[in-house]
Amino acid sequence: MDLYGCKGNVNDAEFLVGVLEKAAKKMGSTVVKTIWHKFSPTGTTVILILAETHISIHTWPEYKYAALDIFVCSEDIDPEEGWKVVKFALEPTSFKVHRLVRNVK
Amino acid sequence: MDLYGCKGNVNDAEFLVGVLEKAAKKMGSTVVKTIWHKFSPTGTTVILILAETHISIHTWPEYKYAALDIFVCSEDIDPEEGWKVVKFALEPTSFKVHRLVRNVK
Repeated sequence: MDLYGCKGNVNDAEFLVGVLEKAAKKMGSTVVKTIWHKFSPTGTTVILILAETHISIHTWPEYKYAALDIFVCSEDIDPEEGWKVVKFALEPTSFKVHRLVRNVK
Repeated sequence: MDLYGCKGNVNDAEFLVGVLEKAAKKMGSTVVKTIWHKFSPTGTTVILILAETHISIHTWPEYKYAALDIFVCSEDIDPEEGWKVVKFALEPTSFKVHRLVRNVK
């Protein structure tokens, strides 16, 4: 997902970690590890390894832009549920959703 | 990228970390943080936060399958260079490449 015109503070790493962890929980997925990095002077990356693949967000606060990936490998996990949480928290004025189906064989 | 029929050991976390770090270096990108997780009984995830976004790999050794993402945000970084390194190391018998252009505005 590409999020444009975010009203949520996309330069606040602690906030973004909370948002992604909430998204993971809402999807019913299990967070295995969380890492984040705050770039200087601006920009934040947060990545969650899930038992069911990953969620990542990279932000460019100077553009109020965030690039979100929700990659899940279980049919029991609905990425739309996680996307709703992030959309609600970051309040983009517009967004693009790209869907990609990947098969193990 | 979806890698099928990998001859490289896609259940070896140390090997995969080495491959991705080499790929990052070959692209001319800077690794900020590396995390990995080995699932039980099988499957490995490795994620590198780059100064220029991220590289991730998730593997399903039982299918000899790996899902690789190379996400870069600098025009000076060529993801194809990183992909060549991973392809050479994991030796897939076939693969699919999905290209996605994302814009900050």
